[in-house]
Amino acid sequence: MFDTQLAAAQRDIAAHFEKVLSGLDDVPVTRAMAHATDGGKRLRGFLVLESARLHGIGSAQAIWPATAIEALHAYSLVHDDLPCMDDDDLRRGAPTVHVKWDEATAVLAGDALQSLAFELAADPRIGGADVRATLVTTLAQAAGAQGMVLGQALDIAAETADAPLTLEEITTLQQGKTGALIAWSAMAGARMAGADVAPLAAYATAIGLAFQIADDILDVEGDAATVGKATGKDIAAGKATFVSILGLDGAKSRAKALVESACDALSIYQGKADTLRETARFVIARKT
Amino acid sequence: MFDTQLAAAQRDIAAHFEKVLSGLDDVPVTRAMAHATDGGKRLRGFLVLESARLHGIGSAQAIWPATAIEALHAYSLVHDDLPCMDDDDLRRGAPTVHVKWDEATAVLAGDALQSLAFELAADPRIGGADVRATLVTTLAQAAGAQGMVLGQALDIAAETADAPLTLEEITTLQQGKTGALIAWSAMAGARMAGADVAPLAAYATAIGLAFQIADDILDVEGDAATVGKATGKDIAAGKATFVSILGLDGAKSRAKALVESACDALSIYQGKADTLRETARFVIARKT
Repeated sequence: MFDTQLAAAQRDIAAHFEKVLSGLDDVPVTRAMAHATDGGKRLRGFLVLESARLHGIGSAQAIWPATAIEALHAYSLVHDDLPCMDDDDLRRGAPTVHVKWDEATAVLAGDALQSLAFELAADPRIGGADVRATLVTTLAQAAGAQGMVLGQALDIAAETADAPLTLEEITTLQQGKTGALIAWSAMAGARMAGADVAPLAAYATAIGLAFQIADDILDVEGDAATVGKATGKDIAAGKATFVSILGLDGAKSRAKALVESACDALSIYQGKADTLRETARFVIARKT
Repeated sequence: MFDTQLAAAQRDIAAHFEKVLSGLDDVPVTRAMAHATDGGKRLRGFLVLESARLHGIGSAQAIWPATAIEALHAYSLVHDDLPCMDDDDLRRGAPTVHVKWDEATAVLAGDALQSLAFELAADPRIGGADVRATLVTTLAQAAGAQGMVLGQALDIAAETADAPLTLEEITTLQQGKTGALIAWSAMAGARMAGADVAPLAAYATAIGLAFQIADDILDVEGDAATVGKATGKDIAAGKATFVSILGLDGAKSRAKALVESACDALSIYQGKADTLRETARFVIARKT
């Protein structure tokens, strides 16, 4: 059931990207944008679609912010993979943009994907202008120097720090780096409906953290072929992670506890939120 | 008079950046954002402020989109200066971000400046949500793979093309690379007022092209110390420019004719648009 729903969302988002990107000139940068937005779990887009459905908003409206957050996520991966950043050759099992094309194309394709994200988040087909303006403002805050970019900056600073990060510092870093976009995604449905965002905010904070712990576990336990990107990088770099601080068993039980608290946060929605509860369990069970 | 108005706008925009950026964590990325948004002509922000004033909208509202377009412009310069792009060490007479910090900081600071641009363009203090959503949509289109990034991509492609670009191709390239943001700036006031954008669109198309021709002339006639960035680069690279195609005199008279047609396009505004007419003349008279 959950697998079917996730697969359907992945197809819908892929189809929407194709529709949106086919309107652009056929140049290397736009081909790189298509490459960068192809595949992946679509977890963030799925959270948008499901949180919208929870509030009675269908995918004709929600596909726009769902595709927006996936465009923003894709831009962050393209830039994160650059030689001056994480220097990764492999992403989602395929060559990264700067490997398949070149660095200039990767910089520009990432830049254009960020612009596209805001264009999609402001699309009139989402609904009222007040909702669209709110989606844009909150997306900009989640993406920028108070959100994702701040997390990435703290991550870079940690590499040259004298002492390894503490649990509190890693948590702050994660809340920016992956937490902010996941939170925006889960709250999008409540924002579109003008409903209270608090339950979904609490849910998102917990699964965002669980997601990063699961990522750290995958970096230790996963193999590159399955995960679709290089593994064992954190240990090799001597980076503090949730695993290095909590131990493998400690990290796993912490992730499980976070998933439980994420599910509890949705109690007001009763059985209607079961798909989001399954999503929380998926976040720590995933192999990629 | 014009000089005084431009200087006042430059001060207002600088003060607004300081207010906005001072709320961010003090890390290298945010310091780089401040560095990248310091100085410059503020032509785009000035066009926003003046086109707003033309429609009776004061700077308390217009300072937000004015600062937004300057943040977007600054991001494009930071990324454009990267070693994998134009590889420039000097900008506005100061070291570029990747020289003063490093490439990773330059990528992230540019990324965060783009997010900031959309946050500012959607700020509630601008006015109604419908206006803000329109500003965001049109800004995203001007910035992305249909606008500025497309122009940059065509510029890169031209470097390895078999034949030098034709006048028509250079014009298309310029309309994306510099024209799109200038057009957005000049039209912003009409958009904020819900007025017809056609006169300002015609004005902006003409000054955008004149601006690029003036840039090509500066690359030939200017010296790096005055211009604030490296000159003579186009000739050294064997690039087709408006000067290489039209000749120096031809380029100058074409720029003058464009300024005249820009002024004429504002006839409906009568004397109220004189500052924008002076701005058009400034675009080709500037030395930086």
